[in-house]
Amino acid sequence: MQRTDFSRMLCPVARAMAVLGERWTLLILREAFLGTTRFEGFLRNLGIAPNILTARLNELAAFGVLERVRVGGRHAYHLTECGRDAFPLYLAVRDWGARWYSGPEGPPTVMVEGATGRPVTAPVPRRADGTPLRPEDVRVTPAPGAPHAVRARFGAERTLG
Amino acid sequence: MQRTDFSRMLCPVARAMAVLGERWTLLILREAFLGTTRFEGFLRNLGIAPNILTARLNELAAFGVLERVRVGGRHAYHLTECGRDAFPLYLAVRDWGARWYSGPEGPPTVMVEGATGRPVTAPVPRRADGTPLRPEDVRVTPAPGAPHAVRARFGAERTLG
Repeated sequence: MQRTDFSRMLCPVARAMAVLGERWTLLILREAFLGTTRFEGFLRNLGIAPNILTARLNELAAFGVLERVRVGGRHAYHLTECGRDAFPLYLAVRDWGARWYSGPEGPPTVMVEGATGRPVTAPVPRRADGTPLRPEDVRVTPAPGAPHAVRARFGAERTLG
Repeated sequence: MQRTDFSRMLCPVARAMAVLGERWTLLILREAFLGTTRFEGFLRNLGIAPNILTARLNELAAFGVLERVRVGGRHAYHLTECGRDAFPLYLAVRDWGARWYSGPEGPPTVMVEGATGRPVTAPVPRRADGTPLRPEDVRVTPAPGAPHAVRARFGAERTLG
């Protein structure tokens, strides 16, 4: 069976997962956020196989998340604006993993704001009344340019959840 | 080469990606947030191969994200508290995909708060001074119970970015 091309699906989650939907990818982004820029640095800090790292870095460059630049005759990988903009989702994934999949000893690290030492966590989405937003509080509606299939599914007002 | 077991890594992002790090998984969660509970519903709305859907649903149940229950003699898949708690990260992934990977016509749907019609987006992480938090604003420090390898890497104060 042919592998589905997620980047051709309309759903923004599908298109994001065309980029992120390989389990090493978010760890490579973690390293980039931690300041790693060199192939050898990613390799050492991740314990990833070199051929897999090469493939993932090439994909992240093709999707515009990382930019491959020459620094002192060697390649370096820098976050693009798109890559830097993934920081909030990285925080949200990190927090969820720490909350639900830590051992009894808790998560191994704490992320803090450098300037203040304040612990950094992803902010909670809130309803207009300030209480946490739950899945059943939202509904999806077609955007103005939505194709027929999207209108057929979401055209009538539907409450989710 | 043996496949690395992400659930045995210490990093909370790695443990989250042990659950989420397959590109169909977040789309299955999307469907669950949209109210889909039946195998046939996931199958129809996702266009996923049945054998892959079975494998992904089993994994999500094993990781405690979905709960398989019997409703009227048939299986249904309900979000657990852990699964519902993934809603903020789903929003963050959705927003990022919509911002960076939409076509010229924009994203096909808009998510709104049912009660108010207000567009729903993932909130922006902010610094103590209220400005958006950037990757270089944070640093990672070892938690009290951190093992040696984590202390060796993050023990000295390091600014990221």
